[in-house]
Amino acid sequence: MSRNIMILPGDGIGPEIVREACRVLEAVNDSFDLKLNFVDELIGGASIDVYGEPLTDAAVERARECDAILLGAVGGPKWDTIDRAIRPERGLLKIRSSLELYANLRPALLYPQLVDASSLKPEVVSGLDILIVRELTGGIYFGEPRGIRTLENGEREGYNTYKYSESEIERIGRTAFEMARKRNKKVCSVDKANVLEATILWREVMDRLAPEYPDVALSHMYVDNAAMQLVRAPKQFDVLVTGNMFGDILSDAAAMLTGSIGMLPSASLNKHGRGMYEPCHGSAPDIAGQGIANPLATILSASMMLRYSLGETAAADAIETAVGEVLDQGLRTADIYTSGTEKVGTVQMGDAVLAAL
Amino acid sequence: MSRNIMILPGDGIGPEIVREACRVLEAVNDSFDLKLNFVDELIGGASIDVYGEPLTDAAVERARECDAILLGAVGGPKWDTIDRAIRPERGLLKIRSSLELYANLRPALLYPQLVDASSLKPEVVSGLDILIVRELTGGIYFGEPRGIRTLENGEREGYNTYKYSESEIERIGRTAFEMARKRNKKVCSVDKANVLEATILWREVMDRLAPEYPDVALSHMYVDNAAMQLVRAPKQFDVLVTGNMFGDILSDAAAMLTGSIGMLPSASLNKHGRGMYEPCHGSAPDIAGQGIANPLATILSASMMLRYSLGETAAADAIETAVGEVLDQGLRTADIYTSGTEKVGTVQMGDAVLAAL
Ligand SMILES: CC(C)[C@H](C(=O)O)[C@@H](O)C(=O)O
Ligand SMILES: CC(C)[C@H](C(=O)O)[C@@H](O)C(=O)O
Repeated sequence: MSRNIMILPGDGIGPEIVREACRVLEAVNDSFDLKLNFVDELIGGASIDVYGEPLTDAAVERARECDAILLGAVGGPKWDTIDRAIRPERGLLKIRSSLELYANLRPALLYPQLVDASSLKPEVVSGLDILIVRELTGGIYFGEPRGIRTLENGEREGYNTYKYSESEIERIGRTAFEMARKRNKKVCSVDKANVLEATILWREVMDRLAPEYPDVALSHMYVDNAAMQLVRAPKQFDVLVTGNMFGDILSDAAAMLTGSIGMLPSASLNKHGRGMYEPCHGSAPDIAGQGIANPLATILSASMMLRYSLGETAAADAIETAVGEVLDQGLRTADIYTSGTEKVGTVQMGDAVLAAL
Repeated sequence: MSRNIMILPGDGIGPEIVREACRVLEAVNDSFDLKLNFVDELIGGASIDVYGEPLTDAAVERARECDAILLGAVGGPKWDTIDRAIRPERGLLKIRSSLELYANLRPALLYPQLVDASSLKPEVVSGLDILIVRELTGGIYFGEPRGIRTLENGEREGYNTYKYSESEIERIGRTAFEMARKRNKKVCSVDKANVLEATILWREVMDRLAPEYPDVALSHMYVDNAAMQLVRAPKQFDVLVTGNMFGDILSDAAAMLTGSIGMLPSASLNKHGRGMYEPCHGSAPDIAGQGIANPLATILSASMMLRYSLGETAAADAIETAVGEVLDQGLRTADIYTSGTEKVGTVQMGDAVLAAL
């Protein structure tokens, strides 16, 4: 029984870092006999250049038939002036929504070897291990009505709709509780229930789910306080669950606490646990093509894919151990370089992981 | 010509810290012959307890006739179970909206004496001086329609509306450009124009204003990136301007970078420069009544009031100099205490500022 993996390199540093992740996947494919089959597709600017749109319907259909997707990153200045409706990011939103990848898992994990890369004091972040569970197919990202209209007085107004139904909240809530069960058994649900009705319902549904997970402690926090607490004392958190917009903001802040966003993978899953895996960082057009991008977040995304969507724990463990080893060897790409370590490029980093495997 | 100042102590530590700020105001009132006249009113839980609502219409009317307002903080567990529509926070939203206090200025300033209180490395934050300009009477906080409704399939949905008109964006944009003129001449406008139409218009209006302020450099940043950059390298910013919701989140994160949110004042101004002044921190019910709260943010809010709404620069300078002196003397309330300094209570801190004046 072979499994089809869709590869979406995307733009900017995407192709370079995905190439290294694919080499790693091919290596474990052989050594663990995983029977993975790779299918290449275009997304983002790369797709715009060929098809005039950031993700074709045909690509979505092929993605549906795959067991998992590995994505690099999308976007870049080349496409910054075209109509917003067909910019690279829209390809990302389209695949998330079409495949109902509602559960976005974004770990913020500090590698002990990289504690100096953080802008926070070592005692504040050492040992940091948070999982942000972000709702990814609802909320203000997809709410209708939306647009820019002309008001009666002649001026224009831009508007969006923030909404969540009970079932949307419930399914992401369950993901958070289930993830917490495998971790430190704490869920902090982040909302703005003192102002927004959409999040009053959010809080209510989380409270309703809690008794079904008596082994997990649920707490609530307003989003402004959560942003503060992430800066002040991030280790107080285990699993943070929140909506699409707040999750976008808080997961980036949390990732940056580690000082090494080039290390952080993410998963976006549907209700069957199928999903898309990608690094937390963007397409970094400023360093694209220079061979200096950090491929580790993408390599770790591949490992996350093996673990969550393909059930290949041994292969996933092997990759993670190999990444730990190259860090122990002192190898660092430019983004995580600190004095006393050895600066390497994208391919050298990939080589080192392959050698450690 | 006397000026009326409304005093709204509010809840939790509000009364304690406002009391110290009033002593300071009375002192400068005498020494600088300011002819200030104080009017006391209730807001938040204190008003709920007496009138059954967090801010009466009569209080709003009296506030309209005042030249400025000094607020402590609102909220606390005592009122956490009453109907959300009349909780303490609603009083705050009502006064902001009724008086059209659309321009919320939240400085994130690191006092050199307090660099150790930050959770960030000293080199990342020393010298930090950012001004967040947050739109305060529009956006998703006040957008209609809003509520919780039952869908056709029987489940409920919570919804809110995020909207901004050109004139709302323009006036807050002008505030940001004008503030930047008096500072380092950089405005970074924060939006999510890659996803939200409301912020596409936001970006457009900011770009349209820019040529009127050729001496100020305008840049744009997505909110997720802004949250990251605040953690990674906050000193890149001068003035940050953004909508109500993003401003709520980013200003709290920025304040926490300093490690001393107990030091940070804020102003909320209307188009005539009249306004309300309050500390950035909340009502801290956990330490209310213990006499240990830091009154300096409220004292500095009083000084900001003298500067922005009353044009009393000399008195404002005197207060700020006095605060600097007590910090130099090594006096610290518990929230900013680090070893080697002298821990003092709320009243002692107020005494010290009065002595330094
Ligand atoms: C590119 C953008 C549309 C996207 C988002 O906002 O979700 C990105 O910031 C992310 O977090 O994956
Ligand atoms: C109390 C709450 C309604 C308020 C807000 O969200 O504006 C507070 O967080 C603030 O920032 O002043």
